[in-house]
This record gives sequence, structure tokens and C-alpha cells, in this order.
Amino acid sequence: MYSHGDIFVGEVIGTAILILFGAGVCAAVNLHYSKAKAAGWVAVSFGWGLGVMAGAYTAAPLSGGHLNPAVTVGSAVADGTEWSKVPLYVLAQMVGALIGAVLAWALYYAQFAANKERDTAQPTLGIFSTAPEIRKPAANLVTEIIATTGLVLPLLFFGRNQGIGIGQVPGAEVGVYGSGINVLLVALLVVGIGISLGGPTGYAINPARDLGPRIAHALLPIPNKGSSDWGYAWIPVAGPLIGAVLSGLVFNAAF
Amino acid sequence: MYSHGDIFVGEVIGTAILILFGAGVCAAVNLHYSKAKAAGWVAVSFGWGLGVMAGAYTAAPLSGGHLNPAVTVGSAVADGTEWSKVPLYVLAQMVGALIGAVLAWALYYAQFAANKERDTAQPTLGIFSTAPEIRKPAANLVTEIIATTGLVLPLLFFGRNQGIGIGQVPGAEVGVYGSGINVLLVALLVVGIGISLGGPTGYAINPARDLGPRIAHALLPIPNKGSSDWGYAWIPVAGPLIGAVLSGLVFNAAF
Amino acid sequence: MYSHGDIFVGEVIGTAILILFGAGVCAAVNLHYSKAKAAGWVAVSFGWGLGVMAGAYTAAPLSGGHLNPAVTVGSAVADGTEWSKVPLYVLAQMVGALIGAVLAWALYYAQFAANKERDTAQPTLGIFSTAPEIRKPAANLVTEIIATTGLVLPLLFFGRNQGIGIGQVPGAEVGVYGSGINVLLVALLVVGIGISLGGPTGYAINPARDLGPRIAHALLPIPNKGSSDWGYAWIPVAGPLIGAVLSGLVFNAAF
Amino acid sequence: MYSHGDIFVGEVIGTAILILFGAGVCAAVNLHYSKAKAAGWVAVSFGWGLGVMAGAYTAAPLSGGHLNPAVTVGSAVADGTEWSKVPLYVLAQMVGALIGAVLAWALYYAQFAANKERDTAQPTLGIFSTAPEIRKPAANLVTEIIATTGLVLPLLFFGRNQGIGIGQVPGAEVGVYGSGINVLLVALLVVGIGISLGGPTGYAINPARDLGPRIAHALLPIPNKGSSDWGYAWIPVAGPLIGAVLSGLVFNAAF
Repeated sequence: MYSHGDIFVGEVIGTAILILFGAGVCAAVNLHYSKAKAAGWVAVSFGWGLGVMAGAYTAAPLSGGHLNPAVTVGSAVADGTEWSKVPLYVLAQMVGALIGAVLAWALYYAQFAANKERDTAQPTLGIFSTAPEIRKPAANLVTEIIATTGLVLPLLFFGRNQGIGIGQVPGAEVGVYGSGINVLLVALLVVGIGISLGGPTGYAINPARDLGPRIAHALLPIPNKGSSDWGYAWIPVAGPLIGAVLSGLVFNAAF
Repeated sequence: MYSHGDIFVGEVIGTAILILFGAGVCAAVNLHYSKAKAAGWVAVSFGWGLGVMAGAYTAAPLSGGHLNPAVTVGSAVADGTEWSKVPLYVLAQMVGALIGAVLAWALYYAQFAANKERDTAQPTLGIFSTAPEIRKPAANLVTEIIATTGLVLPLLFFGRNQGIGIGQVPGAEVGVYGSGINVLLVALLVVGIGISLGGPTGYAINPARDLGPRIAHALLPIPNKGSSDWGYAWIPVAGPLIGAVLSGLVFNAAF
Repeated sequence: MYSHGDIFVGEVIGTAILILFGAGVCAAVNLHYSKAKAAGWVAVSFGWGLGVMAGAYTAAPLSGGHLNPAVTVGSAVADGTEWSKVPLYVLAQMVGALIGAVLAWALYYAQFAANKERDTAQPTLGIFSTAPEIRKPAANLVTEIIATTGLVLPLLFFGRNQGIGIGQVPGAEVGVYGSGINVLLVALLVVGIGISLGGPTGYAINPARDLGPRIAHALLPIPNKGSSDWGYAWIPVAGPLIGAVLSGLVFNAAF
Repeated sequence: MYSHGDIFVGEVIGTAILILFGAGVCAAVNLHYSKAKAAGWVAVSFGWGLGVMAGAYTAAPLSGGHLNPAVTVGSAVADGTEWSKVPLYVLAQMVGALIGAVLAWALYYAQFAANKERDTAQPTLGIFSTAPEIRKPAANLVTEIIATTGLVLPLLFFGRNQGIGIGQVPGAEVGVYGSGINVLLVALLVVGIGISLGGPTGYAINPARDLGPRIAHALLPIPNKGSSDWGYAWIPVAGPLIGAVLSGLVFNAAF
């Protein structure tokens, strides 16, 4: 069982790495003067998926590598994680997401600085947080619920294969990603979600992934950064949490 | 040995996840107002392949994760699955495919709704089911037979490496994808089939994958959805089943 | 130790699958009326690499899954395969490559048939065999030697990690790809060779992969198929064999 | 514990393979008369990542497969590698990088030779070494520090899962990549770094990877090769070393 200190350190470092890679790839394909400019949606999906691999496997020995309040809540519904530890996980994930967004900004500092040039300036929120292509709250919420179910439900069921994953199996909390193949499957699952299910809203599927970088966007001194779009911010929080609870309930019904 | 209830639940959930990802990626690259618009054939191939990974590994502890009548039939010919269980597998796969198609439609609801705009409206069947680039039934049937053999024959032979897969080895039915590496190999096999063998017909290689979503397409209230093309529907059913039987016979001859 | 019959059956089936996928992806991205038309070099590299995975893992329990005279010769130089079995391996690889090319042609039959249309007709040899971008025999030969060394040298050294691979370790011949991770690494190695080293000549790195399909191209009734370019045919045979011998000698010197 | 001779041989061969693939993919996508011309940033990222896989797994049984002074230094800070062996590792990595760059040049010899044509001639340094999109030393240095931390920190933490990696665990130095899954994770980590963090400077993240090929560029007789840009050369050396030390310190603080 993970100690409180290890959970905090692990989730902060792991989520920071995830967001460094995730916000990083969004900067890479969107900002001018980037070698990956216009590399496209497959690049974005691999950047986020491999960020999950990097962050989750880094955090695994300390906290199990959740990196996502939806994963933590889904695991708790399925009796894989104690409810009393959920707030600690979520707090650390938010702190890590904020740090990761700042690191991505620092890494692309010169590119963000160049956004002050009048004729190439563009809104920057899409590098930090998600935004829908068609703004219809009910439809956007349904999209995030289903896409998150596409993440958490498999994660829970994966736990029934050889005692890995976050489901209600003995020892599940410890060593979620202990064997490298598991974190690789989860990383590729996230690649697949991006490619297949990310089209309408940009697939938050993780409240910390969206809210932490949105706060960073609001605070950082980025030229011509545009709005932080707080009116949309509740959907990538509520949708993933609803999807996580649904996933846990389906899992409990199946086993 | 899997119970009848577990087989049904596993195949329904697993096939629903497969089709959610598969129909999802087709919606993602084809529909207007999707962030993955025009992401191309590599994206489609990875979306379907990673959908197999997500669905098969989710279903594995309950049903072995066939998700495809051609896999079930090939396994039965090779004495890996009991013939008496084949109808249950196929029924569950059809139900799951139908559910998955509805979920993909719900996830892309706003994008489908936008298809009512006169000047951007386009046929939508290609998001749900396969269609040939050149409509010649004999050639299309041969394409599906060979492409399905490219799936089921390796799957059967994979089973001779360390007791995994769907071939006639002791314990083969249990834990087809028990070790994560196996489901990853199968997923990448499906990526390869898409990239290499999918050009002429869109690679059904799975009767449920084509017929279930085609029924969903006929039933769902999609604006300007176009024809469900029932005249072609027999080829992506017959071709994969013939390919599955051929694969089983080659396997039986080789061992 | 593999029986002569198993070696023949394994290498024929495995190499046929490899070439079905490999010639398949070249047809997919080059022929008109293919859904993968113009999918690009990354698609080609993944098609060939995943074809190696599919074919090698299929053949592994019967023959070890060489599928390539350069792999067989490199293994023989490194004392991993008996020299007396080399001709049998190579014969089976040639037969398999020929069958695979015919299967790829059958799968894309309607697309090849459409090549008779005057204004879209194009040479078809590039779907079956390799051709250099700049035709300079000495430079082309060096390219194939180095690229094949980039395949066979790692394969031999891989054999020193946990007794897998084709190097001179006890039991190496049996179960080259027994564990799925190995075949996956080899497949990704081939993806990497395609992406990184395939630019000048199209990376034969396998005499059977080039010569078998070239014979098929010469024999098959393809409209407007163009030349089979026999003047170049010796380079993708000689280069890979020289690279294989060099790899074996470096391996022997290192251990 | 690796012998001095094995470390030297392993790091030379492994780093040569890494740079053959890495400089190879940069030649493949940039030079005229290459089949991979304009294959894009995803291709570049996979070429380098799979080069790490090929080189590291080849070197693993001899030296552990560091291939990168930043990895060696990070491991030394974390007590995973003896400081007394660091100079030997770095020397071998530099020699290997130089050899690999020459091999890549030889493989693309005809393409480099064609660079003498007046109207298609272009600078060639980008094939060998990194260059920033926006030349601001402080920002470029920060980019390389953070990007290298994105490599070395996960590598060190990976070592706490099942005793693999380069962290301070018993036996860590031996068999860093003994099990294939580890080298695959590291390879995909490098793919992710390329896609997500490589936009501003081209991600040296390895002093030998940049300096060795830069020396090769200065020495090789390439037509119209342009400047070797020695003014920038210190950043891809200093940045990765600083990132490596920081990663080791964070690791030591966490465990």
C-alpha cells in the first residue's frame, strides 16, 4: 500500500510529465517556428499516449500511476482504491498538471514569445486545454462521458488479466503498471482514444489534464494568448467523472 | 472454460468497444467539424487496430475476446472452440457491434447533426460499414477471403507459441489474450491488415463488424445519411467466413 | 531442432504472409482506386514491418521464422543455424515469396485490372520489387549492404539478451520468436529500417523478398505492367548476402 | 559488471547503429531522390526512437546500452553507474556516433552527391546535427534541459519497476534492457520526446548524438554542405548534461 507521501510525489511527477508531453505536442503542431508544425492528429494522439506511458511508468513505483481523477474515481467505485485517498490523488494530479503546463510553456518559450507578431498571432488555449469543434454543451458532455468510458472501462477490465490494472483484484492497487507491458497497453489505449474518439471535443477524458493547464494558461504571461474560456471548463471535469462512475458500475455488474 | 453468461457479456462489451473505436475513427476522419478530419488511412488503420486491443483485452477474462465470427469459426475448425458455443459467440458479437455503432453515433452526434447542411452533406454509410472502391462482387469476395486469412491464419499459428492464441492447444480457449503481449500482437496485426490489405474493400474481415453497424445505419435518424447498400452486405459476411474456414483447414494440415 | 518438413512448411507460409503484406502495402499506396492511395512512406514502412511480425510469428513454431536468406546466412555464419539446412530455408523462402506476391495480386485484382485505362496506367514493378531512386550500381550495392547490416547485426546481438534471436547461443535456433516481445522488436526494427534506411533503394534487405515477387511480376498477366528490370535484380540479392556475412563476422568478433 | 572492453565495444556498436538510423531518417526526409522525401516529423520521431531500440538492445549484453552521455551521467548521479567508468562510456559513445554518421552518409552517398546540382542544393547540417528554429541561446538551453529531463528522469524511475532501468537498484547496471519490453518502452519514450518536445531545437538530448555527427559533417566531402555551425554546438552538449544531473538529483530526492 502506497504511503501518503509517495502518492503525492508520484502523482505530481507523473502528471507533470504527462502534461509536459501532452501540452508539448499541442504546442509542437500548432505554434509557428516549430519543427513539428502541422504534423497532424496522429502526432497529437501519439504525443498524449506516449506522455501517459512516460508519466504513468515513472509514477508507478510510488503511487500506481493514475495521473487522472477519472482513473482514481473509477478505481474507487470498483473497490480498487480506498475512497479516503481519492482527495490526495486528485490534489496531486492538479498540482502536477499545473507544473507540467508551465514546463511545456518554458520549453516552447521562444515560440510563445513569437506569438506577439501581429500577423501570425493566434489563440493559444488549444495548446493547454480542450475546446469543442461544435459548441453544444449536452452533446459535448455526452462525448466526454463516452470517451472516458472508453478509457476507464477497459482499464478496469484489464485488471482481470493476470492481476494487473485498477480493478477489484487482490494487490491491484500496488503495481498497476509493475510490468511494462501494461503501461504500454494503456498508452496505446490512449493513442486509440485520441485517434478514434477525440474528434468532437479534443478528448479531455481527465479533469486534471484540462483544468490544471487552463489555470496555467490564465496565469502565464503569453503574448496574444486569447481567452481561457471558463464557460466550457465544467464539461471536461463533469464528463470524465460521470464516465468514470459509469465504468465502475458496469465493472461491478460484470464481475 | 467460459460460462455461457460470461461469453455473452464479454463478447457484447468487447465488440461494442471495438466498434466504438472503429466506427469512431471513420467518423473522425470523414465528418466535418472533427479535429481528426482528413487524418488519413494510417489513422484509420490504427483506430481499428487499437479498438481490437481495447475490446479484446477487456473481454479476455470473460470470453477470450474473439469479437469476430470469423475468429470464432476459425477457432472451431481448428478445434480450439466448441462448435456448440459458436452461435452464442456470434449472437453476442452482433449485439455488441450494434451497441458500439450507436455509441459512436452518440459520441459524434453534433457532427452527424451538422450533416444536414446542404452544401456539406455527404453519404455516411462508410462510417458504419465497408464499401468497395471498385464494385465487382467476385473480386471483392476474393479480397475479403484473402484479407481474413491474413488475420485468422496467423492467429491460429500464434497459438503454437507458448500456448497462446486460438489454435488446438491445451487450454487455448482460456486466456487467449491472458498475457498482454498477445493482444498487442493481434492489435498490430489488424493495423497491418488495414494498411496493407484494406485498400480495395475497406477490410471487413469480420461479419459482425460490417453487418451490425449496417443495421445501426439503417435504423438511426441521421440527416442525409444516404443508402445502407444492402446489395453489398453479403460479401463482408461470406468472404470472412470462407477465409476463416480456409485458415482452419491450413492450420489442421500444418500440425 | 526443426524437421526438414516443418522448416519447409513454416518458411513457405511465413514468407508468403510477409510478401502478401509487403507487396500489399505497395499496391495499397500506389494503385488507383485504393483507399490507402498516397498514404505515404510511413504506411509503407509499417506495412512491411507488421508483415514481418505476422509472418515470422506464424512460422516461428515450425521453422524459427527466418523468412529471409540474409537472416539464414547471417545465422549460419554466427553458428546459429547449420549450413546444411541453408539451401532448404532459401528454397522455401523463394517459394513463399512467389506465392505471397500472387496473393497480393489476387487481393488487388480489380485495381490491377483498372491499370489498363490509358490515362491512369503506370508501371507496376515497384509494387513487387525494389528499384533505386538514383541508379548507380556501386552506390546501390553499398546501400543494401549497410541497410541489411542494420537488420542482421541487431538480430544476432538480440540473441544475447535472454537467449533469444539468431546468434550462437544454446537453443537459439529453437524458438527464435518464442516469446512475442521478440517478434515485436524485430518487426519494429524493420519499420525503422524502412523509415530511416529505405530512401535510396527501397530496402530489399532480403533476396527472396525482391527476387520472388520479381518473378511473379514477370509471369502475371497485369495490364500495362512495364518492365521487370532484370538488370537491377542482382543488387538486392548480392547486397543483402554481403551484409549478412559482414554481420556474422562482426558478431563472431564481439563475442 | 561489464568489462572495460565490452563497454567500449558495446557503446561503439550501439551508438553507431543509433546514429545510422537517426541521421538516416533525417537524410531520408530531407534529401532529394529519397523515397521518404517529405515523410514528415512523425517519421523523424519514429526513425530516432527505433534507432534507440536497435542500438540499445544490440549493446545491452555488452555495456547496458546507454548510447548517450546524459544517460551515463544521470545513472552515475543516481549511483547506478560508477563514476570511474563514465569517461570510457562517453569516449565510446563519441566514437560510435562518428562512425554512425559516416555510415549514414555512405548509405545516402548518391543522394548527397546529387546535392551538387545548383538548383536543388541545400544545407546538409540538419541531417547530422540539431539546429534551433529560433536562435536564442538561453531559450534553446532551457529547451534542451527540459527535454533531456523528459528522457533521463523517466529512465531512472523506470528502474524502480521490477529492477529494470538505470536507477540505484541492485543489479541495475547489468541487463538494463535485458528484457525486451524495457528497450521498447525507452524507444517509444524517445518517439514521444521527438513528437512532443522536439519542436524548438530538434531534441539533441544527447551530447554524443549532436557532437559526433557534427564532426563528421565537418570532415566529410559533401557537395554544397554549408556551415557546421560550431557557434551552436555547446548548447546540445551543455543542456543535456544539465538535464541529466537534475534528473539524478530529483531521483535521489524521491527515493
